[in-house]
Amino acid sequence: MTHLLAINCGSSSIKGKLFGIPKSKSDPLEPQSSLEVVNIGSKDEKVKIKITWEEGKGENLTEEGKNGDEVDYESLIPFLLDHLTSSASNLKKEDIKYVTHRIVHGGAHTKGIIVTKEHEEALEEMDKLSEFAPLHNHHAVVAVRSVLDALPNHTSLMVFDTLFHATIPEEVYTYALPPPDREQVMPLRKYGFHGLSYASIVQSMAQHLGKKEEDVNIVVAHLGSGASACCIKGGQSIDTTMGLTPLEGLIGGTRSGTIDPTAIFHLTANPAEGVDFKDYTVSKAEILLNKKSGLAALAGTTNFGTIISRLDPSNCGKEEHEKAVLAYKVYLDRLMNYISQYLFKLLSQLPIDKIDGVVFSGGIGEKGSKLREDALTKLSWLGAEIDKGKNDGKHAGKVTEITTEGSKLKGWVVETDEEGWSAKLARDEFGF
Amino acid sequence: MTHLLAINCGSSSIKGKLFGIPKSKSDPLEPQSSLEVVNIGSKDEKVKIKITWEEGKGENLTEEGKNGDEVDYESLIPFLLDHLTSSASNLKKEDIKYVTHRIVHGGAHTKGIIVTKEHEEALEEMDKLSEFAPLHNHHAVVAVRSVLDALPNHTSLMVFDTLFHATIPEEVYTYALPPPDREQVMPLRKYGFHGLSYASIVQSMAQHLGKKEEDVNIVVAHLGSGASACCIKGGQSIDTTMGLTPLEGLIGGTRSGTIDPTAIFHLTANPAEGVDFKDYTVSKAEILLNKKSGLAALAGTTNFGTIISRLDPSNCGKEEHEKAVLAYKVYLDRLMNYISQYLFKLLSQLPIDKIDGVVFSGGIGEKGSKLREDALTKLSWLGAEIDKGKNDGKHAGKVTEITTEGSKLKGWVVETDEEGWSAKLARDEFGF
Repeated sequence: MTHLLAINCGSSSIKGKLFGIPKSKSDPLEPQSSLEVVNIGSKDEKVKIKITWEEGKGENLTEEGKNGDEVDYESLIPFLLDHLTSSASNLKKEDIKYVTHRIVHGGAHTKGIIVTKEHEEALEEMDKLSEFAPLHNHHAVVAVRSVLDALPNHTSLMVFDTLFHATIPEEVYTYALPPPDREQVMPLRKYGFHGLSYASIVQSMAQHLGKKEEDVNIVVAHLGSGASACCIKGGQSIDTTMGLTPLEGLIGGTRSGTIDPTAIFHLTANPAEGVDFKDYTVSKAEILLNKKSGLAALAGTTNFGTIISRLDPSNCGKEEHEKAVLAYKVYLDRLMNYISQYLFKLLSQLPIDKIDGVVFSGGIGEKGSKLREDALTKLSWLGAEIDKGKNDGKHAGKVTEITTEGSKLKGWVVETDEEGWSAKLARDEFGF
Repeated sequence: MTHLLAINCGSSSIKGKLFGIPKSKSDPLEPQSSLEVVNIGSKDEKVKIKITWEEGKGENLTEEGKNGDEVDYESLIPFLLDHLTSSASNLKKEDIKYVTHRIVHGGAHTKGIIVTKEHEEALEEMDKLSEFAPLHNHHAVVAVRSVLDALPNHTSLMVFDTLFHATIPEEVYTYALPPPDREQVMPLRKYGFHGLSYASIVQSMAQHLGKKEEDVNIVVAHLGSGASACCIKGGQSIDTTMGLTPLEGLIGGTRSGTIDPTAIFHLTANPAEGVDFKDYTVSKAEILLNKKSGLAALAGTTNFGTIISRLDPSNCGKEEHEKAVLAYKVYLDRLMNYISQYLFKLLSQLPIDKIDGVVFSGGIGEKGSKLREDALTKLSWLGAEIDKGKNDGKHAGKVTEITTEGSKLKGWVVETDEEGWSAKLARDEFGF
C-alpha cells in the first residue's frame, strides 16, 4: 500500500500523521499512525518521541532521547523515519510516496508547491521567507531537505498556513505604509496564519451542521501557544488577526501580539541588532516580541492551565496570583476585541441566524472552559447562552456544542486537524 | 479684566483662544478672540497668521509671514503675542494672567502641571516625554518656554491629552511585554491621546442630552490628521485606539496606525537610526511610520476631501482613482474595527437604550458625510438609521444628530473644543 506522511514542524516540535492511500479516490485516507516529537532545542528537557499506531498496524513507541539542545531538525528527521518504519508491522520507507510539510509562511502563494531534490528553487524561496516567520519557516525548510535525503522515492508538497487567507480582501490586508527602502522578498501586507487549522475547522463544522462549506459563517479563535482569530464568511477567510508575521493580533504564550508599532524602540536601544538564534540570525526585536513577551511576560508562565489555577489565591503566592489575574484579564480583553470585530463584520452582512457561531480551538481553546464561559457571557447580549454542563464536560468527537439548544448565538469547541487538512490538499494536488 | 489664553501647538500649527475671566465663578468664560498659525515648518508655503476677535474686542488680522521653514515655535510665540495685543481694542500683555498649554503626552500624570520660570523641572520632564510623541511634545515645550519669557506676569498650566484616559483599566492599558533593557522615562503601556477633545465632547453631549456627564455612554471617532477612537462609559474613557504613542490604532494623514510590530524592520534596514527632524533627532522608524505612512502612503494625499472627490473616476486619472478607492476602503475597514470593538464593550455591559450613540468629530469626522453614512449603514443591524438630509446638511451648533428620530442607535457630529476644555481645567485648578 502506498502511504502519505503529513509533517508539521513547530518551533520546538514535530507532529506527523501517516495515512494509507485507498485505491478509490472516493474513499477516505486510512489513518495508520501519529507521531510527535517535543522539546526540540530545550536546554532543560530531553527530547521525547511518541509513535502511536492504529490497532494492528505497528508497535507503539515512547522514547526519551538526548537533551533538547543537543539535537536539531536535520538529525531528527531520519531518526524519526527509522523509528516509524522499524515499529511498523509492515511499512518500508519506499512505501511513503507522498510527504506534506506544513510551512507557516508561504508569502502570496495561493496553492501548495511540489519540491524534489532536483528542483530546489521553491525551498530556497521558502527559506528566504523565514525572515518573516523566523521561529517557524527555517525549521520546516530544514525538515523538507532532510526528508528529501531520507526517503528515496517520494514527492514532497509544501502547504502553507497563509493559503486559507488568500481570500482576504485588499482593503483588509493592506497596511498604510510607504514603499520599502530595502529589497523585498514579498509585499509587506497582512498574510495571516493558522490556515490549515481554519480550513479543517470549516470542513468539520460543515460536516457537523450538514451544510456545504461555502455556507459556513463562523468566528474562530485558534488559541494555542500561538493564538489567532479568523472571520470566516461563506467558508472563506475575510479577516484574521495575524499579519505580515505571526506576531500581530492576539497575545500568545511568548508573543506580544499587537502593540504600538514604536514600542519596541523604547523597550530596547538596539532592536534591529542581529542575535544568534539556534543556527541562524534574527533581530533582537524578533526575539523580544516573539519569545520573551506574551503570557510569559505577564504571568511568568506560558502554561494557561497554571494561570487559570492561580486565579484562586489559595493555589499560589500573592504576586503569582496578581500576575495571573492581570494576564487572564488582558488575554480576555484582546480576545474579545477581535471576536467582536469579526462578529460585527458578519452581522453587518448577514442576519444572525445565518451565523453558525463562535468556535474555540487549539490547546487553550479546547481546554479553557473558563475562558470560553467568560467570552460567551460577554456575548449574552447577542443571545449566546452557555450550557455549563457541556462546556465543562468532556468533549467527544471533533465538534462539541457548548451553548444551550435555545442559544441564539452558538458556541463550539472544535478539534483542529492540520495534518488531516494537509493530506487533503495533497489528494487534491496529486489526484489520488 | 484678567484673561486666560489657551494655546494648542500641533506639529505644524498653533491654535489659541483668548478668554476674559468673569468676576463670578459661576459665570462662563468670555470668549475674546481666536488665533491660528499654519504651515509652520513647511518648505513650500508661507506661514499664515489669523486672529479673529469677537465684535468690538479688536481688529481682525490675517497676515502671511515668512516661508514655513524659516520660522520656529520659539520665534513665533512672541510675534503672535505682539500681534494679539496690538490688534486688540484694550488688552495689555500684563492682563493675560493664565496660559494653558496642550501637551500631547503627559505620561502617567493624572492632572495638569503648573509651570513657572523658577520651577522648570516639570518642563524638563515633558521634554523627555517627547521621545514618545516626537512630533508634538517638543514643540509644545518650546512654546511654554517662549511664553514664560514673553509674558511677564502669568502662570502657565500644562494640560495633557493623556489625562482623560487615566480611567482606562489596567487590563486594557497593559502590553504583554518583558521588562525594558534601557532606561525608562515612564512605563511602556497604552496612554491614549486626544483626551481634551474627548472630554469636551462628553460635556457637549451631556449638555445636549440634558443629562449628567457621568451618564454619557458613547463611542467617539476623533478623525483629524491624527485619528483615534474612544470608548466612553459613564463619561469616562474605558478604551482608546492610540497607545504608548499617538501612532497606534487608526490610520492618520501620515500615520500607519496599527501594523505588525515587526513590519518596520522589513520596511527599512536601519529603523533605529537617528534622523535629524527640525531641531532634534528621532529614529527613522518614527519618521517613516508617523510622517510617511497613512493616507499619504495609500493615496498620495493627506486631504480626505481630495480622496472622496477621487472616488468619482471622472475627477482624476485612473491610478489616482484606484488609489483613492483603496485608501477609503482601508480607512473605513480600520475605523469600523474599532467602532465595533467599542460598541461591543458597551453592549456587553449596558442595554442599547443606555448607549447615546456614535459620535464623529475632528476635521474628517465633521466634514466626511459619506464616511459617516457608510459607517452608520454598517451599523444598521443594530438599529442605526441615517437621516440623509441631516447628515449631508450644514451642522449648526456644537452637536448635530444625523440619524432619524426613530433610530435605535444614534449618530452625531460634535464640534470639539480642545481650547475650551483646557480653559475649563484651568478654572478648576486655579478656582476662578
